Amino acid sequence: MGQKLKLTKNKAGRMVPSMVNGVKSVPFKGVGKHSPSGVKATPPISSCQNYPESGNKVVSSLKEALEKCNIKNGMTISNHHHFRNGDLVMNKVFDILAKAGKKNLRWFPSASFPCHEPMIKHMENGVIGHVEGSLNGPLGKYASDGKMDGLAVLRSHGGRWQAVQDGEVHIDVAIIAAPTADPFGNCTGDRGPSACGLLGFGLVDSLYADKVIVVTDSLVDFPCIPWQIQGNNVDYVVVLDKVGDPEKIVSGTTRLTKSPDRLYIAELTAKFVQAVGIMKEGFSFQAGAGGTALAFAIYLKEMMIEAGIKARFIRGGSTKYLVEMLEEGLTDYILDGQTFDLEGVRSMRENVGHVNTSPFTSYNWHGKGNFASMLDAVVLGATEVDVNFNANVVTHSDGQMLHGIGGWQNCLSSKCTILPIPSFRNRIPIIVDEVTTLVGPGELIDVIVTERGIAINPKREDLIKASKRSGLPIRKIEEIKEEVDDLVGAPLDKPNFTDEVIGVVKWVDGTVLDSIFKVTH
Amino acid sequence: MGQKLKLTKNKAGRMVPSMVNGVKSVPFKGVGKHSPSGVKATPPISSCQNYPESGNKVVSSLKEALEKCNIKNGMTISNHHHFRNGDLVMNKVFDILAKAGKKNLRWFPSASFPCHEPMIKHMENGVIGHVEGSLNGPLGKYASDGKMDGLAVLRSHGGRWQAVQDGEVHIDVAIIAAPTADPFGNCTGDRGPSACGLLGFGLVDSLYADKVIVVTDSLVDFPCIPWQIQGNNVDYVVVLDKVGDPEKIVSGTTRLTKSPDRLYIAELTAKFVQAVGIMKEGFSFQAGAGGTALAFAIYLKEMMIEAGIKARFIRGGSTKYLVEMLEEGLTDYILDGQTFDLEGVRSMRENVGHVNTSPFTSYNWHGKGNFASMLDAVVLGATEVDVNFNANVVTHSDGQMLHGIGGWQNCLSSKCTILPIPSFRNRIPIIVDEVTTLVGPGELIDVIVTERGIAINPKREDLIKASKRSGLPIRKIEEIKEEVDDLVGAPLDKPNFTDEVIGVVKWVDGTVLDSIFKVTH
Repeated sequence: MGQKLKLTKNKAGRMVPSMVNGVKSVPFKGVGKHSPSGVKATPPISSCQNYPESGNKVVSSLKEALEKCNIKNGMTISNHHHFRNGDLVMNKVFDILAKAGKKNLRWFPSASFPCHEPMIKHMENGVIGHVEGSLNGPLGKYASDGKMDGLAVLRSHGGRWQAVQDGEVHIDVAIIAAPTADPFGNCTGDRGPSACGLLGFGLVDSLYADKVIVVTDSLVDFPCIPWQIQGNNVDYVVVLDKVGDPEKIVSGTTRLTKSPDRLYIAELTAKFVQAVGIMKEGFSFQAGAGGTALAFAIYLKEMMIEAGIKARFIRGGSTKYLVEMLEEGLTDYILDGQTFDLEGVRSMRENVGHVNTSPFTSYNWHGKGNFASMLDAVVLGATEVDVNFNANVVTHSDGQMLHGIGGWQNCLSSKCTILPIPSFRNRIPIIVDEVTTLVGPGELIDVIVTERGIAINPKREDLIKASKRSGLPIRKIEEIKEEVDDLVGAPLDKPNFTDEVIGVVKWVDGTVLDSIFKVTH
Repeated sequence: MGQKLKLTKNKAGRMVPSMVNGVKSVPFKGVGKHSPSGVKATPPISSCQNYPESGNKVVSSLKEALEKCNIKNGMTISNHHHFRNGDLVMNKVFDILAKAGKKNLRWFPSASFPCHEPMIKHMENGVIGHVEGSLNGPLGKYASDGKMDGLAVLRSHGGRWQAVQDGEVHIDVAIIAAPTADPFGNCTGDRGPSACGLLGFGLVDSLYADKVIVVTDSLVDFPCIPWQIQGNNVDYVVVLDKVGDPEKIVSGTTRLTKSPDRLYIAELTAKFVQAVGIMKEGFSFQAGAGGTALAFAIYLKEMMIEAGIKARFIRGGSTKYLVEMLEEGLTDYILDGQTFDLEGVRSMRENVGHVNTSPFTSYNWHGKGNFASMLDAVVLGATEVDVNFNANVVTHSDGQMLHGIGGWQNCLSSKCTILPIPSFRNRIPIIVDEVTTLVGPGELIDVIVTERGIAINPKREDLIKASKRSGLPIRKIEEIKEEVDDLVGAPLDKPNFTDEVIGVVKWVDGTVLDSIFKVTH
């Protein structure tokens, strides 16, 4: 449907609604300008006398656990996405709730995946009113086409923690799918047949939800060690035959890019990091699991070995490449928010230096600091950037909303944020006059690396100076843009944006950074 | 002074005030009868923009950190007691606050020790209004003599968590003394020159206090791993030359009892545990660090080896004796709440199976269950028991309040609570008609083991039956009492209790279980 809403212009010049799914929202005020007031959310006080003295909270079925939670129409059901496209739990949950006649539920996953396509049926039948959380694949398309009842609310990983912590989103029932758990509800992601590494995205749910259900396919005797999620926050434990499809939870091998252009971009990025003096003893960096970011890490690793330099910590998404660096002594620690391959899972289980983190430690803007701003360099992707270094990760130039934000916005706090991106994809230039959707304000994005050269944000005079005699192809962003535009020729037709809002992008402080509009084809 | 208060009789038949230090309090309603309502305490929402981007929260002095906290008269200052009698921080804190002219502060330690005697001067000068927390040694005597302005409020470790979590006690400023910390405030107790093992007693303070100061004498580069306390909850970090006196933090050797009577009691206790079938494959137990409890663990260990039995977990207070059991494969895990000797500290640092716990996991009654009720057996001390199995740990028969509760009340939830105690001490019988102060309701205490025999609570017909043909000296508690009374002769004069209340004992659910009255000599 999309919604015709009263919009006001925020500090980024973007038109945003002040009511989002019935909740009053604050338009973006500028980076670091919104001061939260008030107190954190208040979960109800529990009492041991309402829980089994034996510590055994196992109930016979998922259906029974859900019944005991006394779910009412309109309630919010949450889950973490550590099982990614291999999740076998959440479709079952909503099938049960549908059968029980529940309506207008809000599904609040930390992200959804193609495997969750059956949720479309539940939205069409009114079981799910709307989804709040990263919408990838078919659900993204469904929302993008304006078919979802409520607005999509896109939050970063840190923003999701902030929203729950601050009471902006109240979770009635949290489902924690866990590769290993004990009958008390202690659970971990680092072992078991469906091992996914860690459960950090579900931590806030376990702390703030009224009711918490742990679902596992590997029940061990108390105590389940480590207890990434603490049983003292858990109401019921359910054992299923299989909670996740290991093939799809983590890929056995993470794929490096083979594209010569992207390899070149990755190499340029690593050289830049070295040239400006970021790569020094005890430094830190974060690189995602995308093909280019992986290649960057490999180039950087070679340079570190050559220069005899060791990092203090690397932030993951961990992959076998980062694990190798840890095990070869090239870093003291991996501070990991999600494991992307089986080597990451193994390492988290085996290496004391491979540390389980959460959006609280790493990303929550409404904490007493977080780890993101301590990173010396962070290497991220983007779908578009504009000449003011604003960037987009959630929509494509055709206006379709197809990606979640992940930790992307949170990472922008780093000391040097670098976006290595090809200058065009499928004949569409990536550097534009204005991003389709604003997800990252340009003042936080320091460097764009393309196969046609490196553009440094003019605000970062220090980096411009440091890279002066580097021999690297430092260029003005406008110059690169012009070159690409000339090469690609006439720009494609702009998408037909309607004035109907189908979603909003939240900033890390909970304010509304931008709206996503429905497109007609 | 003591306070003449309006008292009402609670469900245990004890006279208790309904106002405690100006806060409305609920009289004890019976075990498992008080249902809490409402929501947890609400710490203020913070924002990263008010904390250094570098993550470096180090300020130049303790004085500066305290000034930045903007402490006002009447505020509450808290700390953990993991440094025990070796704490070198809290006297400094109150000296600074005294010099700054602060008045009527509430000191809220998890326990106080003889090293804190200087706090008496601060109470006399009005800097500290009163202390809430376990009062050991000179502070206990000071309060006991009715010299403290406010009432002593004695809470168990779990009760302290409950009180803070439920908003009964609001902490304005928490001081977390930490053997190792990083500039962001992540910290750990398991390493550094003042290593104390863990910091679990300070965890709730870090979560709920408005302001949190970490004080360390061993600053390491970010990240401090493990982070027993998370820097995301910390405001300031202070580095001092020395935060604790290692000699007094942990004793290099924990002392076993040499008394033949107590050794016999310990052996009887172990034999009882075996005879009634508690000691079986995968069982669990908890024994404190007192001489008799240690001896019990050693006897039990021998029996376990002989019978080829392994425990699933042992709850500490850890000592070298428990560490030996872990390292010899006699238990899968030590779930540790405080380390009592250097071997405990080393083991926590080195053994994955030696797990750092907190009062939240182990003891908090207002959680979704806790670990205490899962223990197959727990072995505790007592200053007095009565013929109805009620027990006392905070006062002596002379009415003096000299001990804190520790985890004692929380442990009573175990499946079998055993008190091995001598039948008399210094010619004073330990089994009495009525305990001086009620700290543990008799219905939760299952077995009393003395050198004159073992008394089983008549409620535990299962234990009476199971021990029938054990050959152990099972006797009625009245019989043992009579024998001791005859032996000791004329009872000592009862202490002269006044009607002035100097303290209250809280039950694990926050209700008031008993009052402690002033005694005249």
